[in-house]
Amino acid sequence: MTKSKQTNEGLTVKKSEDMSEWYTQVVQKAELADYSPIKGFMIIRPNAYAIWQNIQDYFNKILDKLEIKNAYFPLLIPESFFKKEAEHAEGFSPELAYIQNSDEVGERLAIRPTSETIMYDSYSKWIRSHRDLPLKINQWCNVLRWEVKQTKPFLRTREFLWQEGHNVFATEKELEQDVDKMIKEYKKLSEEMLAIPVIMGRKSRAETFAGADYTMTIEALMPDGKALQMGTSHKLGQNFAKAFKIKFKDTDEKEQFAWQNSWGFSTRLIGAVIMMHGDDHGLIIPPKIAKNQLVIVPILFDKTRDKVLKKSKEISNTLKRFNPIFDDRDSYSAGWKFNEWELKGIPLRIEVGPRDMENKQVTIVRRDNGKKETVKEKNLVAKVSEILEDIQKSLFDKGNKFLKSRMDSAKTVKELKEKIKEGKIVKVYMADDPEVELTIKDKVDGAMSRIVELSNVEGKCIFTGEKTKTVAYFAKAY
Amino acid sequence: MTKSKQTNEGLTVKKSEDMSEWYTQVVQKAELADYSPIKGFMIIRPNAYAIWQNIQDYFNKILDKLEIKNAYFPLLIPESFFKKEAEHAEGFSPELAYIQNSDEVGERLAIRPTSETIMYDSYSKWIRSHRDLPLKINQWCNVLRWEVKQTKPFLRTREFLWQEGHNVFATEKELEQDVDKMIKEYKKLSEEMLAIPVIMGRKSRAETFAGADYTMTIEALMPDGKALQMGTSHKLGQNFAKAFKIKFKDTDEKEQFAWQNSWGFSTRLIGAVIMMHGDDHGLIIPPKIAKNQLVIVPILFDKTRDKVLKKSKEISNTLKRFNPIFDDRDSYSAGWKFNEWELKGIPLRIEVGPRDMENKQVTIVRRDNGKKETVKEKNLVAKVSEILEDIQKSLFDKGNKFLKSRMDSAKTVKELKEKIKEGKIVKVYMADDPEVELTIKDKVDGAMSRIVELSNVEGKCIFTGEKTKTVAYFAKAY
Repeated sequence: MTKSKQTNEGLTVKKSEDMSEWYTQVVQKAELADYSPIKGFMIIRPNAYAIWQNIQDYFNKILDKLEIKNAYFPLLIPESFFKKEAEHAEGFSPELAYIQNSDEVGERLAIRPTSETIMYDSYSKWIRSHRDLPLKINQWCNVLRWEVKQTKPFLRTREFLWQEGHNVFATEKELEQDVDKMIKEYKKLSEEMLAIPVIMGRKSRAETFAGADYTMTIEALMPDGKALQMGTSHKLGQNFAKAFKIKFKDTDEKEQFAWQNSWGFSTRLIGAVIMMHGDDHGLIIPPKIAKNQLVIVPILFDKTRDKVLKKSKEISNTLKRFNPIFDDRDSYSAGWKFNEWELKGIPLRIEVGPRDMENKQVTIVRRDNGKKETVKEKNLVAKVSEILEDIQKSLFDKGNKFLKSRMDSAKTVKELKEKIKEGKIVKVYMADDPEVELTIKDKVDGAMSRIVELSNVEGKCIFTGEKTKTVAYFAKAY
Repeated sequence: MTKSKQTNEGLTVKKSEDMSEWYTQVVQKAELADYSPIKGFMIIRPNAYAIWQNIQDYFNKILDKLEIKNAYFPLLIPESFFKKEAEHAEGFSPELAYIQNSDEVGERLAIRPTSETIMYDSYSKWIRSHRDLPLKINQWCNVLRWEVKQTKPFLRTREFLWQEGHNVFATEKELEQDVDKMIKEYKKLSEEMLAIPVIMGRKSRAETFAGADYTMTIEALMPDGKALQMGTSHKLGQNFAKAFKIKFKDTDEKEQFAWQNSWGFSTRLIGAVIMMHGDDHGLIIPPKIAKNQLVIVPILFDKTRDKVLKKSKEISNTLKRFNPIFDDRDSYSAGWKFNEWELKGIPLRIEVGPRDMENKQVTIVRRDNGKKETVKEKNLVAKVSEILEDIQKSLFDKGNKFLKSRMDSAKTVKELKEKIKEGKIVKVYMADDPEVELTIKDKVDGAMSRIVELSNVEGKCIFTGEKTKTVAYFAKAY
């Protein structure tokens, strides 16, 4: 058997030593993404796209259940559309990329950074009556934001893939329920599918989406102590409805402005999965979003080769529902294969060797904790299901324990700064005022609040000293 | 019950009278697409996107079976990449849209019109050894071609959605088998899923993809006698491999250029479905690509209202596997609903009225031929399955009969011109030379060959009079 170093050189750095370099190596060596010739753009390779596709499949079922329909709106948006909603314009203008060709009226055309404006132009034509509501549309697409910050595959890139949902309601009450419903669906996706625990809540005014009344968010804490925004759900209220004249006749034939939200998550979730679960051997994919839940590696020796191959294929067929990789490549050693599939994060490895075969059993190795066990063939399907479920649960539990261990609080700006440095999410009383928050930010190495909530008990803003019921959870963030 | 004209005014033109205007009306009134504020761009509305999603779901399964993996490459491509393969550059340069921002080296960046160049830049890095082959990658994405021709929703737009597959092989033989395999998969998709019969074959040299050795195509004939290209599979040979230096070490450690193909179909297929199957009442969706295969309309009178509603819901549950629409809206009459769902092309309508209910039966109406029948409740699932299958088959058979009736041949350019005018696909002998074909094109109102093939029997080129074995199938085209 040949040994080759072709693709799997393994990681040369430990996750705990230098997470940033570790991340870069996992992304490259597990073939998740590659750099594009253009700065800030990335190639999403099949191993990562398969995760995205599983997320899409899951979420498309949720959309169906919620009677939200998929559609597709144009990539290019006329410049004038961005100017209609003032805050939105201010928020996105610096990041727009315009094309050189202009449209027939000579207007500049921007590549979409998000699609509120182009969609709501249509909504204003489609919505006439209360009978046209609710209107619930989602789109899966690419968006482009000409960021100047340092980019990082999945986490911050100029182009990314996402879903953006845009619902319209007749009443504010229905709208607010829906804003809440969507952020809860995101929490479920993150915790149940990606096995990533999150905190959920409202964004501070400083961190609210440009053009929204308020923004709901879910935030995960990465092992390096930085928070990552996993999805947001915005109450747009009537801001865009007024800017785009989205009006309907209610049951009394009276004209009303419509109530709107928008909500999205992106391929950034793949970055979260990598950082959250990976270890010194590479990626660990939670079973529920793994395209291949296991790999079967026959242990081949000349004498028993044919028998073992035959048996391995049988086992592969038995385990079809787990979409196994069957790795019978001759040009690589078993050890090389073990390393490769560990690097690529396949949840389970099943080894079929001649001795196991005699005993009508196989060896199962878990990716998450490396534990080995032998399992009788006749129990295989049930046992594999059980172990996969346990892996999914263990990954979540580990993350949850970590998250809880990192929740803290502070009474002064100095204490806040120290605890943020320790990689914590730190609860403080804060007046929900952008000016106050940005001043605090400057004093705590650039950390911002991740969520805010109203406490039952009044306290004093750590900066102004004024009484407030608002508590803010500060952390460094990606 | 209220009657409203809100959305379903019905078509004001017959398909046979003015197919172009009929098409525009179906697209708008069945809510398939809408015009964008920018010329040449369209909004794909949920009713059409659902068809696209079903096509995607079907084809993703095929991709899995063929071990082709999905990925995603950047939207923007450096100008220099287009210049590497000369024919490709010439073919696409006129249609490129560049953005105003340039990359770090100051190069212009174009929005992808197709992704050969950006993908093969990566391929040249990923492929080193014969063990890296075959490499088979597909992507679903938007592309942009700044067309100056008249645009039409789905059929010709500046932006469209598609899949583009890009496979790489170690040998020419494997490559050619794959070129063939992919075009056959497209034929199957068209005929079995979309119920649209096609002719399949090679493109003439004049119609070959820019940068390919040859192009295989499937072509359907629309009811107005114009052909529509439904999908293409290109043998790129080593043209791009040489331009992008995609080389591998073979089993003898000798360096070789790789062999490549690319293959794609687009949202244009939705346009084909509309044109091919629709009638004077609107759209007809083939059952296999219909998101909702049937609609249940309870016939409500005050006295029996509750009973009928209850029974209808029961029936809706029984028919869950067909993903029924349950239309119990109060604000529309039954007749209005019938018209709406006919316009929108739902394959079957099930009416549940008080009299039917007493007889433990329902009334089923087929969208394709309007035939009504009463079916006993206990036979419902089997009967619905059977009718849906029959609709799928009938749509195909009708198209196939039409296609066959329009196949003809000609011996002179004059005869060719006349028969093309009759909306036929006309077989002629022709020297496969772009100059010859373009000259013929000018004489036959702009028609080009759709496919060419080699005949066993030699004949004379209708233009040059020279002996040739090449026969070309001419038709007008979209």
